[in-house]
Amino acid sequence: MVQRLYITYNQVHKLCQEAGQKILNDFKPHLMIAIGGGGYVPARILRSFLKTPGSPNIPIQAIGLSLYEKLTRDGPEEGLGQQVTRTQWLDFSSINRTDLIGKNILIVDEVDDTRTTLQYAVQELEKDVSEVAKKAGRENEKTNFFIFVLHNKDKPKRGFLPQEMLDKGRYLAAQTVGDVWCCYPWEATDIDEHDRLAAEA
Amino acid sequence: MVQRLYITYNQVHKLCQEAGQKILNDFKPHLMIAIGGGGYVPARILRSFLKTPGSPNIPIQAIGLSLYEKLTRDGPEEGLGQQVTRTQWLDFSSINRTDLIGKNILIVDEVDDTRTTLQYAVQELEKDVSEVAKKAGRENEKTNFFIFVLHNKDKPKRGFLPQEMLDKGRYLAAQTVGDVWCCYPWEATDIDEHDRLAAEA
Repeated sequence: MVQRLYITYNQVHKLCQEAGQKILNDFKPHLMIAIGGGGYVPARILRSFLKTPGSPNIPIQAIGLSLYEKLTRDGPEEGLGQQVTRTQWLDFSSINRTDLIGKNILIVDEVDDTRTTLQYAVQELEKDVSEVAKKAGRENEKTNFFIFVLHNKDKPKRGFLPQEMLDKGRYLAAQTVGDVWCCYPWEATDIDEHDRLAAEA
Repeated sequence: MVQRLYITYNQVHKLCQEAGQKILNDFKPHLMIAIGGGGYVPARILRSFLKTPGSPNIPIQAIGLSLYEKLTRDGPEEGLGQQVTRTQWLDFSSINRTDLIGKNILIVDEVDDTRTTLQYAVQELEKDVSEVAKKAGRENEKTNFFIFVLHNKDKPKRGFLPQEMLDKGRYLAAQTVGDVWCCYPWEATDIDEHDRLAAEA
């Protein structure tokens, strides 16, 4: 049976608070991209801790990605493939594509499980930015991506992130856990019982 | 001095849980639109309580709206005008505009203060849908909007909502409060102290 890890809202809050300090010191993001639904809560909390006196809030763009299991033609042995579906992307009617060029962009999600969604997000964002930079003749301006997740599951990954991102420490998991079931508070049907189970552990 | 109302995460969670039941009974939304950043947390929690067995999660689209104060040319007497800035809108590259026609759409934000942002959201969404319905020759299909906020401040409003929405009970505030300062947990720099202050009240 898979072990369950119960996480309270206040724990999530404190993980974001700690991470916020590190991210401000090491990366100074210009824009945050929240992967919804799981990234919504950490992204909103994190924004409070990325606010510096005298500066406006860091803007957040939400994107929607969901994994769905897909039966491959290779049959049950090859088993289930995972495919990412885009339900929302950056809204280029409200933000200017060229505004992304040369910026530090922070991608936020709740959990890094198979890494499939994160790989998709980074690849597609890099592709978008490099296309627009090419068109604008601004390929010399480096756009940097940084990932923040609450939990990374220490397990073999199906998705991969750019080596440069890992080498430069631009991947931050507030906590690294085993292959457990992360029970986030926003999914609790009884939040008092959820907190009790978290305290017990 | 403005009175401060401290709200804990678990209180927010329970307000969403109660509201979820009502919204499912009365409205059965097909799509949720979270007004960011304040709507991100309640929208994510609410999604858990709008899930019905055997059905997929209700999709969430995030939009970004922020109010900024603008000095009008009429001088200080007329004072500060408030203008809504769009930082993100529905992404019509990922969703089909016509998919909105005839649907029940739930708009989520954290607080209804001056009502300016909510008015803007409803007006612009109605405009978008009515344009696309007209083009598609589907004007006979009614698209319904419903608003959920955690807190409504009982004060004179600058913004207005469609009378039909109010008449049909399609506006739900989990709590109605005076003209207080709502201190949401995701803005707390010391979450334990925040909880203590909430418990004290």
